[in-house]
Amino acid sequence: MPFSPNIARLLISCPDRPGIVAEVSGFLYAHGANITDLDQHSTDPEGGTFFMRLELQTPHLDVGRAALERSFADVVAARFGMDWRLSYAAEPKRVALLASKADHALLELLWQWKRGHLPADVRMVISNHDTLRAAVEGFGVPFHHVPCAPGHKAEHEAHVLSLMEGQVDLVVLARYMQVLSPEFVARYPNRIINIHHSFLPAFVGANPYRQAFDRGVKLIGATAHYVTADLDCGPIIDQAVGPVTHRHDVVALQELGRDLERRVLARAVLCHLEDLIMVFGNRPGVFG
Amino acid sequence: MPFSPNIARLLISCPDRPGIVAEVSGFLYAHGANITDLDQHSTDPEGGTFFMRLELQTPHLDVGRAALERSFADVVAARFGMDWRLSYAAEPKRVALLASKADHALLELLWQWKRGHLPADVRMVISNHDTLRAAVEGFGVPFHHVPCAPGHKAEHEAHVLSLMEGQVDLVVLARYMQVLSPEFVARYPNRIINIHHSFLPAFVGANPYRQAFDRGVKLIGATAHYVTADLDCGPIIDQAVGPVTHRHDVVALQELGRDLERRVLARAVLCHLEDLIMVFGNRPGVFG
Amino acid sequence: MPFSPNIARLLISCPDRPGIVAEVSGFLYAHGANITDLDQHSTDPEGGTFFMRLELQTPHLDVGRAALERSFADVVAARFGMDWRLSYAAEPKRVALLASKADHALLELLWQWKRGHLPADVRMVISNHDTLRAAVEGFGVPFHHVPCAPGHKAEHEAHVLSLMEGQVDLVVLARYMQVLSPEFVARYPNRIINIHHSFLPAFVGANPYRQAFDRGVKLIGATAHYVTADLDCGPIIDQAVGPVTHRHDVVALQELGRDLERRVLARAVLCHLEDLIMVFGNRPGVFG
Amino acid sequence: MPFSPNIARLLISCPDRPGIVAEVSGFLYAHGANITDLDQHSTDPEGGTFFMRLELQTPHLDVGRAALERSFADVVAARFGMDWRLSYAAEPKRVALLASKADHALLELLWQWKRGHLPADVRMVISNHDTLRAAVEGFGVPFHHVPCAPGHKAEHEAHVLSLMEGQVDLVVLARYMQVLSPEFVARYPNRIINIHHSFLPAFVGANPYRQAFDRGVKLIGATAHYVTADLDCGPIIDQAVGPVTHRHDVVALQELGRDLERRVLARAVLCHLEDLIMVFGNRPGVFG
Repeated sequence: MPFSPNIARLLISCPDRPGIVAEVSGFLYAHGANITDLDQHSTDPEGGTFFMRLELQTPHLDVGRAALERSFADVVAARFGMDWRLSYAAEPKRVALLASKADHALLELLWQWKRGHLPADVRMVISNHDTLRAAVEGFGVPFHHVPCAPGHKAEHEAHVLSLMEGQVDLVVLARYMQVLSPEFVARYPNRIINIHHSFLPAFVGANPYRQAFDRGVKLIGATAHYVTADLDCGPIIDQAVGPVTHRHDVVALQELGRDLERRVLARAVLCHLEDLIMVFGNRPGVFG
Repeated sequence: MPFSPNIARLLISCPDRPGIVAEVSGFLYAHGANITDLDQHSTDPEGGTFFMRLELQTPHLDVGRAALERSFADVVAARFGMDWRLSYAAEPKRVALLASKADHALLELLWQWKRGHLPADVRMVISNHDTLRAAVEGFGVPFHHVPCAPGHKAEHEAHVLSLMEGQVDLVVLARYMQVLSPEFVARYPNRIINIHHSFLPAFVGANPYRQAFDRGVKLIGATAHYVTADLDCGPIIDQAVGPVTHRHDVVALQELGRDLERRVLARAVLCHLEDLIMVFGNRPGVFG
Repeated sequence: MPFSPNIARLLISCPDRPGIVAEVSGFLYAHGANITDLDQHSTDPEGGTFFMRLELQTPHLDVGRAALERSFADVVAARFGMDWRLSYAAEPKRVALLASKADHALLELLWQWKRGHLPADVRMVISNHDTLRAAVEGFGVPFHHVPCAPGHKAEHEAHVLSLMEGQVDLVVLARYMQVLSPEFVARYPNRIINIHHSFLPAFVGANPYRQAFDRGVKLIGATAHYVTADLDCGPIIDQAVGPVTHRHDVVALQELGRDLERRVLARAVLCHLEDLIMVFGNRPGVFG
Repeated sequence: MPFSPNIARLLISCPDRPGIVAEVSGFLYAHGANITDLDQHSTDPEGGTFFMRLELQTPHLDVGRAALERSFADVVAARFGMDWRLSYAAEPKRVALLASKADHALLELLWQWKRGHLPADVRMVISNHDTLRAAVEGFGVPFHHVPCAPGHKAEHEAHVLSLMEGQVDLVVLARYMQVLSPEFVARYPNRIINIHHSFLPAFVGANPYRQAFDRGVKLIGATAHYVTADLDCGPIIDQAVGPVTHRHDVVALQELGRDLERRVLARAVLCHLEDLIMVFGNRPGVFG
């Protein structure tokens, strides 16, 4: 969608009950916020969860943003027990990219960002290796090498967190080969995105690409999700698969897996940046 | 989506201006119609067209349907200059299928209908040939053979129209190889669905499959659209493509084309039956 | 591809070594079998497995089929340690369909067969329930109800095997909800096709559709495979996925799963019928 | 597929007749060239065209390349009237990229090339504008600005041809907004690749994206093809489509079109670089 500095996006989830759309839209209309796009659904007509995403035109607001948000919190959100957030297209989210040695996912994000396809403020790249410094600095993005010595994971994480402190709205794990501690994850709830390859069906144990090859899988996939304390089990943001033929050997499967990872991660990050996703409990609602 | 007899669907389009969502949702809330799904967008923030589709739960309505519709027309629709319609899942649309000799599109619709995938009341099949009578009657659907002798098109159409008179909400051309007159089309505005194959790029002139083969096309497509007076130029409902390899000869391309036609037509009919499409001017808004 | 009664298909796998293509093609040329389609690859240039599929025109053979096959066995196959089979398009494979109560996969196969899309000789449907008798007999196919009382699985299987004895080249499990014994499977090696839904990633434990819904999966899949003694782990023939949106509830996910199952199973059966698949060890080579 | 310096690829097309596979494979076996991958088909069993692509392992050749090629020409190709070429993976094709002002297609090619996904020797970028100089030189590729003043097209083309003289095996038009003269095209037969957007169905006249939007198309496409004297009608190499929803406005459609163009062009160039395509007459055979 074309960029407009006048767009705000309101995301809401709460227990469903009659009258929510009327209440929210009435409030916005009364304050001069014109709704140009609205997507709403309930998971169940009785006792379900209500999800809604609105795009608003803000030029004719009758109050400032802070006042609008305070008023919405007091008048509407409190009454319905809403989780909600209001974002402004004119204020792109601040992003940190965490990587290790592999460059495919990281470079895809930087390229798409440079081309204007990812409306973000990329603040920094942090890596436990120095390998990708030149590539990153070529994009004009600060690169921080934060080594992670065996047995010093806590210091590593503390260092990473201090670099991001107050600077970052979203953390993207672009093939960052470190398991994050629950304490780290708790600092950025539903704001850390990870990518991993996926198989259909799953292959348990070592070398899944070899197992997939041996059974003759026809599809390889990738899954982007929010990171929770429970590794690789967070809410899913996006997934894709690519076709495999009898001419793919194990190396070609891995290359296909990397290609899917970089594309799915970039799509998932865009989805978050455009406020197209909202998590309620562990369940993500992806709009659009 | 699972069938529920309590669902009504409201489709609205009108010139955009602030306050429409608030007005409509306020009206519905006041009358006890709970919104469980809402999809709205405007084509432009200034001077655009407003499109909205809502799914409502009707068990707690405070008035009867007729009263609700009258009130909505008077209180809301008139004020905003709305095109609108309200449909009830419990009242499936009545459908006539028109075919010639080819059976692929017709049988696909009848099979899907019999399996419960097309929530319609299939009233009749009308054909200018008698070829498919047995196949159709096997589904328990009345079959009408209405021949079309050269130079007697007007009589043919009059006969077809008389069979459908007062019986039919939707007309589906399942490879009905007759060009409809503007008068016929005007009787069912945006309620006649047609299917035709499509090429990428287009091939003008005779035998497009041969031309497509000769240039080595990699994709063959099909397009389902509403019929307007301007042949094959009506609002598009759905499209799909299928992959072509160097092993497809011209006969295999044609078979692929037929397979796409039947699948796309069935999807387009379902889209209409579930009120997922609304036309404003010549432009279709397909929701979901 | 269009049907031709003059086509034979030769499938070969063996340890790779130089000269196999030259030997096979030289043999066929010498006997008047013209190659019109050939697909060959080796899994590795050194020490890999050789896979080849050929389509031959048979009108100008200089010997009868039996003599040709004997000669090929003696002169070519023995020398290279080949697994091979030669099939004739004019002799469609004889098929038994096994089902339980669910009809989606079974009816899809019968419909496609009736439309001429599955070049098979469907000999019988066998079910452990009587539910689908009328639907099957409507296609003119014999229906055998073979109940499976608890604790009498061996008798059930013996009865099923006796019905198929000498009548069947391929067994298709169209949602046949019985686990086959290794003895049953051994009677039809790489000639029993099964279908099951697949998730990306996998969900272990009860009610995978609910788990998939809760995590917000974006894709649901299905996998068709040959049955081996190791349940659900046989060589994969075909797979597909379908997109999930935030509007799919658990029931809609299940319906999407069923739709994928019937399409993937039909494609896999066609793949087998056209001799497009060959298994070497546990690894399937799917051509085309 | 993983790169191997020992692979050669042989592409052949000729009028079909019995014995070609035997002859070619016999010749190669006799000279120590092991076939590891072979794809062959004929367009018709009688009077059709024969297409074949082989991958060979070259380490055990009994003669040098030049001698092998001479012998193949004399002994095999002449006899069957073959069009053929033999390429070596160790000798990547030399490529010139021609662009104007738009960067999306050009940068995609340079990025993929830099990542090692396009096994080419990118010799130069030539543009009729100076806009993209910095971006190109950042990849270490020479950039030539060759202006094209109105009425001086012949000089422009002469200049471009002189830069490429003896340096280039493949010319890629990465949104190069100049129509090439038949004389230019004749210098690189089936070795100039172009990309253009495609619609389904086609929209004739000005502003096709607006027309596509107005009719509500559901798919936008792109087509990569070899350039022939007949503009936009050359043999097709690859095509793809992307889905359109009711939320795409005209600007978003154009962005989607650009995204498809860059991906399809990159795939088509890779297809040519890996010798997966062969043109016979105007008809392309794309293998794999």
